[in-house]
Amino acid sequence: MSRMIDVADTAAMLSRAEDVLILTHQYPDGDTIGSAFALCRALRSLGKRARVECADEIPEKYEYLLMEDADSFEPQFIVAVDVADDKLLGSLQSAYSGRIDLCIDHHGSNTEYAEYLLLKADYAAAAMVICEVLRTMEIPFDSAIAECIYTGISTDTGCFKYSNANAYAHRMAADMMDYSIRYDMINRVMFDVKSRARVELERRALSGMRFYCNSRIAVMPITCEMIEQSGAAENDMEGLAPLPRQIEGVWVGITMREKAGGEFKISVRTGNHADASAICKELGGGGHIRAAGCSLSGPLDTAVDTLVETVRRVVTGIVR
Amino acid sequence: MSRMIDVADTAAMLSRAEDVLILTHQYPDGDTIGSAFALCRALRSLGKRARVECADEIPEKYEYLLMEDADSFEPQFIVAVDVADDKLLGSLQSAYSGRIDLCIDHHGSNTEYAEYLLLKADYAAAAMVICEVLRTMEIPFDSAIAECIYTGISTDTGCFKYSNANAYAHRMAADMMDYSIRYDMINRVMFDVKSRARVELERRALSGMRFYCNSRIAVMPITCEMIEQSGAAENDMEGLAPLPRQIEGVWVGITMREKAGGEFKISVRTGNHADASAICKELGGGGHIRAAGCSLSGPLDTAVDTLVETVRRVVTGIVR
Repeated sequence: MSRMIDVADTAAMLSRAEDVLILTHQYPDGDTIGSAFALCRALRSLGKRARVECADEIPEKYEYLLMEDADSFEPQFIVAVDVADDKLLGSLQSAYSGRIDLCIDHHGSNTEYAEYLLLKADYAAAAMVICEVLRTMEIPFDSAIAECIYTGISTDTGCFKYSNANAYAHRMAADMMDYSIRYDMINRVMFDVKSRARVELERRALSGMRFYCNSRIAVMPITCEMIEQSGAAENDMEGLAPLPRQIEGVWVGITMREKAGGEFKISVRTGNHADASAICKELGGGGHIRAAGCSLSGPLDTAVDTLVETVRRVVTGIVR
Repeated sequence: MSRMIDVADTAAMLSRAEDVLILTHQYPDGDTIGSAFALCRALRSLGKRARVECADEIPEKYEYLLMEDADSFEPQFIVAVDVADDKLLGSLQSAYSGRIDLCIDHHGSNTEYAEYLLLKADYAAAAMVICEVLRTMEIPFDSAIAECIYTGISTDTGCFKYSNANAYAHRMAADMMDYSIRYDMINRVMFDVKSRARVELERRALSGMRFYCNSRIAVMPITCEMIEQSGAAENDMEGLAPLPRQIEGVWVGITMREKAGGEFKISVRTGNHADASAICKELGGGGHIRAAGCSLSGPLDTAVDTLVETVRRVVTGIVR
């Protein structure tokens, strides 16, 4: 169990901290990267040593958020940002699990693995929590920090499309724009540009989409074969999870990504009619009410059956 | 030439007006519809008679913005919203051209066809201009008016993705959210929901994509056969034109829609590297620098050859 702290406590703790290691979650996205580098920039602006570590390579499209590596140092304070569970540290888990001083997060499902936890479960992005902390620390914002925060908000709200894009998210984004950020470039890179391999993968994935329960459930398997045949790399895989639920009439949209070893990484997206986190909890996973995940072992058809059965049991009002 | 007026003049004029007819542009979008119904609701809340007219049927997805028809009345004051040119009134042009008292708009290209013009060319949406007018008129906002304004902002900024989605647009959207609007439903209906037929059509269209000139040109034919086989209806066809240019490295993205009679309706989209209107002008069409169109007769392969040859000739720096 973590000790829960507020923004002021967190700001004070970080103001005292030295030689800070900042950890992101694996398969890093715009929110964990934006949060980490906003904090890293802020700490360095105070003359502290700080660096960011991530289990996976940071996709090229986030290049504009990165900063030069610091000289090597032995961390005296370790903070994880946007990391709901220390399992999500990936290959860094063994090195740092049990040693994490502070977690700053917005996932209601946070497993309280850090000694101290600043959690704002009603915020659209971890970057919004970071923004409040930096403001309380009286860090002078510049366009680089503002682009980090904006990227976190924009990516975690699907460019202000999801229900978490509330008035506060818009106002904070607007405040970041006051620092002359390149928001049009950011949104184009995040939401518009697709590789040919990605387009090819999407085409194959759409072809394999399956519908259940009067088309209230749409399941889109993404197999190793599809990935190989399309030539898609890891960074071509992002943002596939929303596709099944975008289809008219679908309550529960499920993406199943086959991993080496025959496991499937499951992403569940829902609208008003269903609770994604309730579905995934049944299967040993977790997440938010509209977006959650879990893992299932194959073969594919067995995993699909398990998923559809679970949705039928958990979602009231769904036709068999 | 119109007499240019400011927000305060416009508010005063509308506060005095009675029996107001509000005109939208043809092929109506979220901004012209949102602007029109926000104004209509505001005028009716003051006890005035007001109604909205549009040359075309309003697409079903905008249903949540509409209000009951007023009793018939002879208009004493005619206002056009988001209509840059009276030609864009479509079939209403003959009835109302030369009789329009006021135009409220955000297009720098406005042709000044109305007696008075309130123009804010740096605003992302006409609905933002309407919002300022209603505030100055001291109209009490409710969720219905706020949903109209939000819809205009959200649709004209591509859900806050385009460069016109500046801090002011975000802040006004946030202000509208303070009236408990259903922004998640709105964004889902505007940007997310696709019919199964549309998904099937996209899949077929992606399969038929062709690349030329070292993949700087992407051509996506949409044939009658594809449309028929996917079961797509006319309203499933919207928003396909941007797809080819979203592919990494593509300078010129071309969509070719086959029409009855073997003609192809061509949409050309470009980035910084090429001028879409210069390409289409060569082929007897026209448009904007980043989005233009023309028509070509078939067969398909001949039309593709003509297009690729034209792009090679017009776009400097493109490899053969």
